[in-house]
Amino acid sequence: MKNFSYRNATQIHFGQGQIAKLRDEIPADARVLIAYGGGSIKRNGVLAQVHAALEGITSFEFAGIEPNPHFETLMDAVALTRREKITFILAVGGGSVIDGAKFIAAAAVYRNDPWEIIQTYGAKVTQALPLGSVLTLAATGSEMNNGSVITRAATQDKLFFHSDHVYPKFSILDPSTTYSLPARQTGNGVVDSFVHVVEQYVTYPVNAKVQDRFAEGLLLNLLEDGPKALAKPEDYAVRANLMWTATMALNGLLSTGVPADWATHMIGQEITGLYGLDHAQTLAIVQPAVWMHTREAKKAKLLQYAERVWDLVDGDDDTRITTAIEKTRQFFEAMGVKTRLSDYGLDAAVIPAVVAKLEQHGHVRLGEHANITPADAASILALAL
Amino acid sequence: MKNFSYRNATQIHFGQGQIAKLRDEIPADARVLIAYGGGSIKRNGVLAQVHAALEGITSFEFAGIEPNPHFETLMDAVALTRREKITFILAVGGGSVIDGAKFIAAAAVYRNDPWEIIQTYGAKVTQALPLGSVLTLAATGSEMNNGSVITRAATQDKLFFHSDHVYPKFSILDPSTTYSLPARQTGNGVVDSFVHVVEQYVTYPVNAKVQDRFAEGLLLNLLEDGPKALAKPEDYAVRANLMWTATMALNGLLSTGVPADWATHMIGQEITGLYGLDHAQTLAIVQPAVWMHTREAKKAKLLQYAERVWDLVDGDDDTRITTAIEKTRQFFEAMGVKTRLSDYGLDAAVIPAVVAKLEQHGHVRLGEHANITPADAASILALAL
Repeated sequence: MKNFSYRNATQIHFGQGQIAKLRDEIPADARVLIAYGGGSIKRNGVLAQVHAALEGITSFEFAGIEPNPHFETLMDAVALTRREKITFILAVGGGSVIDGAKFIAAAAVYRNDPWEIIQTYGAKVTQALPLGSVLTLAATGSEMNNGSVITRAATQDKLFFHSDHVYPKFSILDPSTTYSLPARQTGNGVVDSFVHVVEQYVTYPVNAKVQDRFAEGLLLNLLEDGPKALAKPEDYAVRANLMWTATMALNGLLSTGVPADWATHMIGQEITGLYGLDHAQTLAIVQPAVWMHTREAKKAKLLQYAERVWDLVDGDDDTRITTAIEKTRQFFEAMGVKTRLSDYGLDAAVIPAVVAKLEQHGHVRLGEHANITPADAASILALAL
Repeated sequence: MKNFSYRNATQIHFGQGQIAKLRDEIPADARVLIAYGGGSIKRNGVLAQVHAALEGITSFEFAGIEPNPHFETLMDAVALTRREKITFILAVGGGSVIDGAKFIAAAAVYRNDPWEIIQTYGAKVTQALPLGSVLTLAATGSEMNNGSVITRAATQDKLFFHSDHVYPKFSILDPSTTYSLPARQTGNGVVDSFVHVVEQYVTYPVNAKVQDRFAEGLLLNLLEDGPKALAKPEDYAVRANLMWTATMALNGLLSTGVPADWATHMIGQEITGLYGLDHAQTLAIVQPAVWMHTREAKKAKLLQYAERVWDLVDGDDDTRITTAIEKTRQFFEAMGVKTRLSDYGLDAAVIPAVVAKLEQHGHVRLGEHANITPADAASILALAL
């Protein structure tokens, strides 16, 4: 195991009815910005629950944070935040809304051009308004981590920043808020969580048993309960397991003391930036191809993954690895997420465009060995056509 | 899954050489009380590392915190803390030292008789001095939780208190500090961690998959690496896995959203209070007997435990449960911890004495169903003779 430092102070309130806890978490004299997305929280009653919990507290609404939230949109929210002297940001939605809220919280009190926050990957963030979240989609883990992914629409740049100043103070996870999700978002969320886990697990062995077994447990949960959520969307136990699994998949615990890959995310991010595919769609396309390309370097962990997650113990090493990759692909497809560029009407023209973006962003040495070059990315994408 | 709230803000620094981080964690103008036990930290160089890291910071030492730390001893430390206007408590040791430091931190600023802290299970604690720890024994999880167990030697009372005010601000976990432990303490630590996990896992099913799989993973780690630590005490990877496993076993994560038992701990605590057995010895005695007594109520989870931890899939339900209990007992014995009262020279006279203490402490409805009465405890102890 490698040395590590770990701390995660986000307060979690988990379960049906927990939205009422907003009352205890937000100061009575706060001026709250309720940030949300496309309005599904109006239809399913979540926004009404939020307002009921905040009765008597001054609040403003900012709607319209899109998936892969746009810098341009968020800057409107920053202006509102400054104008109305907001003191607390409350994200109500999925990962995109929470990511957006993190940017708003940091940018509202940033002295220079807030694009710097993203250009410097968060290194220049020294303060942020306090923020909290009411999660309505199990997927990104943003509700319990310090990361945020923001897209500049004008330049098709999708980039991330991290800062300990943007950890949510609290997150409320009520699984019943996810009953009304479209199947596409449920499936995307499961794929996103799955890839978060394997990015931190399918690397090379460092004899980190807690982290490995936690990762394997989360993957098994997704395999078992992902299909159930599609089949029976209002099964509370299933939604609860998916929600807590997704949070644990990216709250920092799995990455303690182990190497991490993230090549799939880095390459996928460029595809979303350029072509607007859902985040999870790009992961489902790129992940199997990354494994095909790096199967020798990842051999030991791919074999462990094959055995412990897919129960593959017969046959030679190569066969088990190939089967594990194929089963992963089939699982993504079963969750309704296609795994080939061609499924989305894209062809080999994608390759030079993505390579150019990776180079432009300086993402030229990816993966746990920092040896995935843009040329490798081209080979990976060729395997994903 | 049941509703829950969860937050754990302890900063962890894990790995060889991390004791140097004390410098960053303790304010330069602090007045530090270094609290420790019997002096092994002098022999193995840990205390010297602590002093090197604290160079230039005012510090005092309080030595002699015993296993199952005594209220009477700790009150001497409280007096020193008040007299020297200590502003930070640094525990250097295992769970007993950290538990003791938690009491010192709370008692030093408590206005009434500090025994009230324990009598009220921590409910009256409204503040505490900040504390941190340098852990030298993988066992209790005290380094990342808000609990503490204190013994009043005069009355043989061993009781616990909880308060969010006594979470360590940080804990430094350097696995190499555990190389020099006597085999007895290594074995005890593994048994203690194991029982912490099963107290939160072998109850009744609530379809909490994250919690179940995390628990099963930690148990498998202990089965694999516990014997290795006895065979080869200076294997860093093994010590690291045991240390992180023990921390995860009782940092609040496993108990989110699930029922918990703790009958074994409550009964075991009285045995330590009365007869001075090591904490882990009492757990190894009581746990198999609790399972024999409650095997019908715990049937579903005992079968899951038998299958996922011991790979028992053949034979009827009763046989698998009996085998799983027997294998657990054998594992404790293999870790050098005997599992019968008679192994420690105790006999049936223990039974009325423990029952009387349970009644005196009001612990008359134990277990996840709150239906283990003192009469049940007597039956359990009769199974452990």
